[in-house]
Amino acid sequence: MAGKDLRIGVVGTGAIGRTHIERINNKLQGAKVVACADVNVDFGKSVAEKYDCKFYADGEEMIASDDIDAVIVTTIDPYHEQYVMAAIKAGKYVFCEKPLAPEAEACKRIVEAEVAGGKQLVQVGFMRRYDTGYRQLKAAIENRTYGEPLMLHCAHRNPAVDESYDTPMAVENSMIHEIDVLRWLLNEDYATAEVVFAKNTRRTHANLMDPQIMILTTKSGVRIDVEAFVNTGHCYDIKCEVVCEDAILNLPEPSNIEVCANATRGHAIHSDWSTRFVDAYNTEIQEWIDATKEGRVDGPTAWDGYVGQVTAKAASKARDEKKVVEITFDEMPEFYKK
Amino acid sequence: MAGKDLRIGVVGTGAIGRTHIERINNKLQGAKVVACADVNVDFGKSVAEKYDCKFYADGEEMIASDDIDAVIVTTIDPYHEQYVMAAIKAGKYVFCEKPLAPEAEACKRIVEAEVAGGKQLVQVGFMRRYDTGYRQLKAAIENRTYGEPLMLHCAHRNPAVDESYDTPMAVENSMIHEIDVLRWLLNEDYATAEVVFAKNTRRTHANLMDPQIMILTTKSGVRIDVEAFVNTGHCYDIKCEVVCEDAILNLPEPSNIEVCANATRGHAIHSDWSTRFVDAYNTEIQEWIDATKEGRVDGPTAWDGYVGQVTAKAASKARDEKKVVEITFDEMPEFYKK
Amino acid sequence: MAGKDLRIGVVGTGAIGRTHIERINNKLQGAKVVACADVNVDFGKSVAEKYDCKFYADGEEMIASDDIDAVIVTTIDPYHEQYVMAAIKAGKYVFCEKPLAPEAEACKRIVEAEVAGGKQLVQVGFMRRYDTGYRQLKAAIENRTYGEPLMLHCAHRNPAVDESYDTPMAVENSMIHEIDVLRWLLNEDYATAEVVFAKNTRRTHANLMDPQIMILTTKSGVRIDVEAFVNTGHCYDIKCEVVCEDAILNLPEPSNIEVCANATRGHAIHSDWSTRFVDAYNTEIQEWIDATKEGRVDGPTAWDGYVGQVTAKAASKARDEKKVVEITFDEMPEFYKK
Amino acid sequence: MAGKDLRIGVVGTGAIGRTHIERINNKLQGAKVVACADVNVDFGKSVAEKYDCKFYADGEEMIASDDIDAVIVTTIDPYHEQYVMAAIKAGKYVFCEKPLAPEAEACKRIVEAEVAGGKQLVQVGFMRRYDTGYRQLKAAIENRTYGEPLMLHCAHRNPAVDESYDTPMAVENSMIHEIDVLRWLLNEDYATAEVVFAKNTRRTHANLMDPQIMILTTKSGVRIDVEAFVNTGHCYDIKCEVVCEDAILNLPEPSNIEVCANATRGHAIHSDWSTRFVDAYNTEIQEWIDATKEGRVDGPTAWDGYVGQVTAKAASKARDEKKVVEITFDEMPEFYKK
Repeated sequence: MAGKDLRIGVVGTGAIGRTHIERINNKLQGAKVVACADVNVDFGKSVAEKYDCKFYADGEEMIASDDIDAVIVTTIDPYHEQYVMAAIKAGKYVFCEKPLAPEAEACKRIVEAEVAGGKQLVQVGFMRRYDTGYRQLKAAIENRTYGEPLMLHCAHRNPAVDESYDTPMAVENSMIHEIDVLRWLLNEDYATAEVVFAKNTRRTHANLMDPQIMILTTKSGVRIDVEAFVNTGHCYDIKCEVVCEDAILNLPEPSNIEVCANATRGHAIHSDWSTRFVDAYNTEIQEWIDATKEGRVDGPTAWDGYVGQVTAKAASKARDEKKVVEITFDEMPEFYKK
Repeated sequence: MAGKDLRIGVVGTGAIGRTHIERINNKLQGAKVVACADVNVDFGKSVAEKYDCKFYADGEEMIASDDIDAVIVTTIDPYHEQYVMAAIKAGKYVFCEKPLAPEAEACKRIVEAEVAGGKQLVQVGFMRRYDTGYRQLKAAIENRTYGEPLMLHCAHRNPAVDESYDTPMAVENSMIHEIDVLRWLLNEDYATAEVVFAKNTRRTHANLMDPQIMILTTKSGVRIDVEAFVNTGHCYDIKCEVVCEDAILNLPEPSNIEVCANATRGHAIHSDWSTRFVDAYNTEIQEWIDATKEGRVDGPTAWDGYVGQVTAKAASKARDEKKVVEITFDEMPEFYKK
Repeated sequence: MAGKDLRIGVVGTGAIGRTHIERINNKLQGAKVVACADVNVDFGKSVAEKYDCKFYADGEEMIASDDIDAVIVTTIDPYHEQYVMAAIKAGKYVFCEKPLAPEAEACKRIVEAEVAGGKQLVQVGFMRRYDTGYRQLKAAIENRTYGEPLMLHCAHRNPAVDESYDTPMAVENSMIHEIDVLRWLLNEDYATAEVVFAKNTRRTHANLMDPQIMILTTKSGVRIDVEAFVNTGHCYDIKCEVVCEDAILNLPEPSNIEVCANATRGHAIHSDWSTRFVDAYNTEIQEWIDATKEGRVDGPTAWDGYVGQVTAKAASKARDEKKVVEITFDEMPEFYKK
Repeated sequence: MAGKDLRIGVVGTGAIGRTHIERINNKLQGAKVVACADVNVDFGKSVAEKYDCKFYADGEEMIASDDIDAVIVTTIDPYHEQYVMAAIKAGKYVFCEKPLAPEAEACKRIVEAEVAGGKQLVQVGFMRRYDTGYRQLKAAIENRTYGEPLMLHCAHRNPAVDESYDTPMAVENSMIHEIDVLRWLLNEDYATAEVVFAKNTRRTHANLMDPQIMILTTKSGVRIDVEAFVNTGHCYDIKCEVVCEDAILNLPEPSNIEVCANATRGHAIHSDWSTRFVDAYNTEIQEWIDATKEGRVDGPTAWDGYVGQVTAKAASKARDEKKVVEITFDEMPEFYKK
């Protein structure tokens, strides 16, 4: 298939779906979005018209169609399972935005279906793994140049969230990124989760404890703390410090000109995730296209999606019950071992 | 007394005592060490000879003598109480290296003696308060330019410790500095303490869990984590990040030339506390001399020394019993309120 | 043409030619290399085979062929003129690696041919303009947020060069990049050039004065110094400091993890231009593809290529004659004004 | 004399004189200002009263008096020679603020008088040599760890100057500091000087070209450029980059907390030389006191003061005549060789 463009169908034409259509059609190499589907027919049709692709009111019909080679699922979260299952049934590669499904049980059903189908097809949209800085960190950790990692200190800071963002979302929507990327960085599973609170910022509202700290430990004893502070007022900033036996490593600050003005020497910080991680999104989808055309899944798997949700649920329980919660799941099927 | 040199007697002529003698006699202004005392008579005499001051085999005799105006206590920790008490009895200002006394009860006896004596005389050697960087942090916090502080992330990293350094010393000898300086920085008391472990470095030994993390909360809800990692292998490094409502503030790195060599752009880091905090020690003793000559105590008080030990004991209990421990003590006497 | 891939023919299949073929075929969007040409027939054929494209022994025949839409010229420098002229004659868009031609007179002939042809077709490969950092600098300068630029301090540092690199190449091969990008950054022409020497490094050889400093002034009086130091021994490093009336701006350091090890806190520096500017090369060619498909030239023009060579020649004369040389050329044709 | 305070007399009770009195009496060790003199009798008397020292209307009388051991000259520049000569005549150590004298000829007369007197007594107030950062640079250069220094890029930036500051003052009052400190850093004499202009900032006035660039070369061929930009509008900032064969070294930024606020991560910069170099001034005077009490001059000598003025005059001539000027002076007397 290498010589021809991959023909992609997108289910769910909301904001994230459209940014994927735009990057595939205008920026990336080797694929075209040829079809889209949305339960909101009028809106979906307008998107199809704008991007000159075929519209399907029924996503499953699109997925089954011979017109498309691969699927991107960008519906709202509760519908992910339905369309990923349809792709598995159709034997087509599918990229599903995170989370794979809101409930761990649904993720498990996907895993079981994929295993039963006998072929790995599913990739989950954890795009941090594609950020250059995290990749530099992983390279520095993996060869053990600096000894074993012992502790990680992380932060996830947003400028502001709206009223619909409540206490559980700090784990389930924000720190879910750390849950995935740190497990990948350390290449091992988590053992326990805990969530604690600090003093609330005046900028928060009645339904949101902000900031929060999630504490994870790994099977081998690495201890991780992640600060989620989603109303900093001004910056989108991601920190990851890896304390190893022989070195302390830090995720780079994004590159920006140094400005010395008004008696301050400094650098502008991103105020939005979409600018901070724009390159990571492009790399993620380009690598998915490339791997799909070569008949491989080499990004986050359905199993990763499942483990992510299990961990998030454990962290949520830990937060609600104010205690340390053990993280348990079945052994990883051979199917996912490389 | 402003026009004349303060005549100081030093009890305890070990390494720290001698560095204080050298800085007072050769570097600072307005004082001279005129006498020293040590239970080790031969060694003490050699020190007295070297620095051209009078030797006393009996520290209490020296403290009572009319030849000295003020006292510095740099004996081993268990003898601090005895000599501080002697100074209070003699009505003389006394600078006592940290800890004020190893046991909180002993600290409390000192507080009670000082209050009973009716005059503030005791200062404890918590020198971090005199570091320029911490003072810049305190200035930035105190005027609330950046809103309320919500969380602190700190680290205390040493290159190596010897076999005599065991698990409890991470709190009682290393993080005791953070216990004092962060309480001063935030200007409020602690509510709870907890100590947890990460994965051990291969560099540690059987009696030392390294690294450790101490977690403190304040009465108002500020959450503090302090990493103690005392076998980094290469650096003495102190971190303090203050997450406020409107800004994130960080203790400065010590100033050093930038070297771009061997395909790396970087700065040398201190590998020893004595070089990292040399200016803080000088400022600490100079300000103590100045205040003493003006009849004031304006550094860490006996009460601060007492609260520091109570907190350290709570953290130790939390570590041993693997739980969160509340920190309780009597109300601060009016005597110490400014 | 927007919906179809641009069919590109590459003249010159050396190292830079092949990296462009690889990036177009595997990484970028909207184009394919369908043909290549090389006077070295055997080698050229092997390249054509590897990349599955048609081989032409005669580059001009390839350029004239209906099989290709646009041309990339990556031959050795003296042949650039011949193939760019052929592309102009064929009415096809052409991307020519820098320099447009080694002699200013040859550049002028290209300009005249393009003007006579009545359509802008030529782009020159000055890729610095596509580097994110330079674009951030240009954005900060252009809106005059920080007042007028007054001075620039720049450096161009390489780890090492081989024996064939001699004194004139510091201007003509290395600082030619600064000649183009700084003129673009400031949006004005140069008035004078000067080249002076510092103490030679022991790493240089008999035919190379290293380091050198080139000094340029602009028509409005901005003063620029550019250090070329091509035997630093360890780093590929590009500096650009713009001193404005109200701020000092600096080109960012490329992003890299912070490593604190061996008592040093630092960042690795690139040791090779190909890694330092890999993103700039990709952006350059992608934007050229996009503009070509839309029938525009929006990168460095033939006129820019001509002015660059005039400036380099003036700097070389200044160096050889040890004096300040005025930079003169005819007025820019209306044709190139936007 | 080690055991007793050095008794200092200060001639000239203006601002800089008074800051020296304050630092000696309140901050430094081993000396007291016991007398002061000023031609402005009323003002001088008020200063004497404030600092509780004896007043002399006649500075030479004070210098000759048995009441003082050593002299500090902080009059306006044209009177430096008279009082330094008086100190030499009296055989007393004298610290003279820079310049030693406004005219090179006057400096030479001082040198000759000192040599004739047979004992080194004079130190000039070039305080940059006492800055920790410059000392770190010198240490890194002197042991040739990084090979030979080849080039220096420096900058001297002030927030603003008043109308009395004219074009010549950039060399004679501002960059005179670089003239001295760079010669000390490199440990060799200058060969040539040149001064050129950039585009003027709008903030300057009719009698001041701002910024300026002074170019110095050393006997061995090191090339130095120093930017003087005295109306930056906001910062007092000193840069010194030493390009060596194997490394590029930079003077450290002064230490300050990192503030991440308003979508910028940065550090405050000094806006005043008096805060930037406060530690250097203290160290300078303390080391002068210490050396004086031990009967040595170990700071900048009369010869250094003379060479500094010769260099400044050459740079001024270069600026006025728009050409490169050779710097010539007699051989350094054996007297000053260590």
